[in-house]
Amino acid sequence: MRGTKTVSGEARAPASRNASAATAPTQFIKTPLETYAFRRFGGGAALPLVCLQHFTGTLDNWDPAVADPLAGGREIILFESAGLGRSTGDVPTTVPAMAAHLLAFADALGLSEVDLLGFSLGGMVAQVAALERPALVRRMMLVGTAPEGGEDIMHLEKPELSRILGDSTLKGYQVLVKLFFTPSEASQAAGQAFATRLMARTEDREPVSGPKVAQAQVAAFRAWERVDGERFAKLRRITQPCLVVNGVFDNMIPVRNSYFLAEHLPNAMLLTYPDAGHGSLFQFHDSFVQQAKLFLDA
Amino acid sequence: MRGTKTVSGEARAPASRNASAATAPTQFIKTPLETYAFRRFGGGAALPLVCLQHFTGTLDNWDPAVADPLAGGREIILFESAGLGRSTGDVPTTVPAMAAHLLAFADALGLSEVDLLGFSLGGMVAQVAALERPALVRRMMLVGTAPEGGEDIMHLEKPELSRILGDSTLKGYQVLVKLFFTPSEASQAAGQAFATRLMARTEDREPVSGPKVAQAQVAAFRAWERVDGERFAKLRRITQPCLVVNGVFDNMIPVRNSYFLAEHLPNAMLLTYPDAGHGSLFQFHDSFVQQAKLFLDA
Repeated sequence: MRGTKTVSGEARAPASRNASAATAPTQFIKTPLETYAFRRFGGGAALPLVCLQHFTGTLDNWDPAVADPLAGGREIILFESAGLGRSTGDVPTTVPAMAAHLLAFADALGLSEVDLLGFSLGGMVAQVAALERPALVRRMMLVGTAPEGGEDIMHLEKPELSRILGDSTLKGYQVLVKLFFTPSEASQAAGQAFATRLMARTEDREPVSGPKVAQAQVAAFRAWERVDGERFAKLRRITQPCLVVNGVFDNMIPVRNSYFLAEHLPNAMLLTYPDAGHGSLFQFHDSFVQQAKLFLDA
Repeated sequence: MRGTKTVSGEARAPASRNASAATAPTQFIKTPLETYAFRRFGGGAALPLVCLQHFTGTLDNWDPAVADPLAGGREIILFESAGLGRSTGDVPTTVPAMAAHLLAFADALGLSEVDLLGFSLGGMVAQVAALERPALVRRMMLVGTAPEGGEDIMHLEKPELSRILGDSTLKGYQVLVKLFFTPSEASQAAGQAFATRLMARTEDREPVSGPKVAQAQVAAFRAWERVDGERFAKLRRITQPCLVVNGVFDNMIPVRNSYFLAEHLPNAMLLTYPDAGHGSLFQFHDSFVQQAKLFLDA
């Protein structure tokens, strides 16, 4: 795997306790399904926090300002699902198939109980994992995401999104600065700080996702929007404590989807941030980390 | 005033630092408008927190489990508006007229800058006070409340509310247990604990509000629901940091009013609690106090 080491579930690598999302080495683990890239760092008494990434995001998209402070009290495990970055296989076109990759990864690493941070698409994967394997998931943070049967999920053809995605002057992370943050001066400044933090990782980076990844994930969003049977009924079966978080001006997965989650999950607190979009956890990283610690350590 | 002392704005009483909502003596202050009953207790470096009460509530309706821990870091001032309890005058039929009483009270006490905790009707009064006298209000907690132009505010004729209000078997605080908490076992148990805490105050209690109070306050709710001009436009002028809190199953002032607040106030965080109604702050008092301290001490 391009010079990086492969670990087995048995020979589990110790957490690199002083590492950061910016420097933690990429590792690889072979499972019956695929071989997944991942990073683990930090440590502490709390359960590991497995982090599930957004649309087209790779391991490199985890903001050190969010991941590093949380790594002070627990191990952080960043997971790269099939077909992303240097993980093998194809990106599935449904969320349940993505959740199967997460479960294969957890089994191979020998993880029996974890907390989950699911951002955007990752929050959908987290919900399915909690339904499929309730004993694995102790607590979940569901950020900028939606329940199955949610509304207006990642419609990239909407004018406010297609304008940004079609702007050829926006290079690299500048697309995310526009997509994840609001047009206000304060939010855009937070977005630039976020982009700078993501660039702090200079080596051992993942290949950037291409159109094939985006296409498969969009198909998964379309399937996730469908209402089968009683709307939101599955949420009642997710009894884990959840912290639902979003910005009130999220254009990618509007905040009403977070309202649906908080109103239908039996044990979810909702937290929304003002003047914030899809990337509210990166914009308000200090507050988010504080709230995440309160929630995870409760 | 029935044997309790009257203070003037100049001869301001020192906070009774070891007191509680259950034991703080009722005091009275004469102002150009009316003479108001109030209680003050606690103390610390932070600004005083002035607490504004709900529909028909008096000074006796403040839960010691919420007020007392907050009094550890700041003075708590419970305000009784005109026509309530032993305050003189009539209950106004509009929220702005209620806010005028709050401002007269603050002026008489010599308060130049405070934080506000406005619950339900009290949250509406807080919003008007922040608009009328922005310099007075540093930060606001708006719990179980609605913006001007909000929806379905305290329609006591709704079946789910009239059933409770018309149930002659519900005595004393048992009405609040049904109104403020959900039907779940956990929420009802929290409601009984709340009722017990309110009864911890055995002396120096306020007279219970009668139908005349309710009638005037309901008139104020009807006026508050009206949309004049651009809906929610006034919220843009409330630039203070706000913490909006509600239970997702509030039958009295539904949670969508909290969504309106969080989406239109420029600087508001929203927090909602699961399996909770109008009295979410009393049900989740430990979490609420923790969040309130984080917010007020930020």
